[in-house]
Amino acid sequence: MARPKKTEDGAAPFCPVKATLYLLGRKWTLLLIMELMGGVKRFNELSHALGGVNSRTLRERLRIMEKEQLVSRRVVSHIPPWVEYSLTPKGRALFKAMDDLSHWGRRWMKPPRPAAGKSR
Amino acid sequence: MARPKKTEDGAAPFCPVKATLYLLGRKWTLLLIMELMGGVKRFNELSHALGGVNSRTLRERLRIMEKEQLVSRRVVSHIPPWVEYSLTPKGRALFKAMDDLSHWGRRWMKPPRPAAGKSR
Repeated sequence: MARPKKTEDGAAPFCPVKATLYLLGRKWTLLLIMELMGGVKRFNELSHALGGVNSRTLRERLRIMEKEQLVSRRVVSHIPPWVEYSLTPKGRALFKAMDDLSHWGRRWMKPPRPAAGKSR
Repeated sequence: MARPKKTEDGAAPFCPVKATLYLLGRKWTLLLIMELMGGVKRFNELSHALGGVNSRTLRERLRIMEKEQLVSRRVVSHIPPWVEYSLTPKGRALFKAMDDLSHWGRRWMKPPRPAAGKSR
């Protein structure tokens, strides 16, 4: 008999490993974690570091990561005020937990080869 | 100035870590790797272990994983013949590289709380 794949209410059971992969697979998340491993960063610094991202997307992404307790946000009340972001212990632990997987990727994953020319 | 995000031909540069996450994020891949860590498995055994997957999807998924050199496929020429799968060194290394990230997930990722009732 097949192993049951669903809980009683028909939903797939929660898998923390899949949830982690889903979280890491979202655009900008990984880059933001990598940037913030370098220390506290202002919004504008993150924006510059990420190049292509627009401010609205970045703000939204950071808000989600704040909700997930990966980053913490702090408003510095200077004039003019600024907003800065840093990794929480949870965010730092995630970066460290990625270490072996990053090594694996660099060891084993190669860029897809360009399609072979048809000149022959 | 923003850091360049694109290569000269306009494509995003290849990132082995993202490629790894993409690979792991595909449905069934992680479960198949986990099943095959238990040793060589016949197609039917994998099919049973995974419950909900249909044979065509499973065959296709295993073919992709074979192409990615994560699993190896062997036809055993008994009568009737059968097909069995095992992890390659690359596949086993991937499972081991997932270890810290799995721990992180189990430590930090919680199931989403059900939506609050509106009875109050």
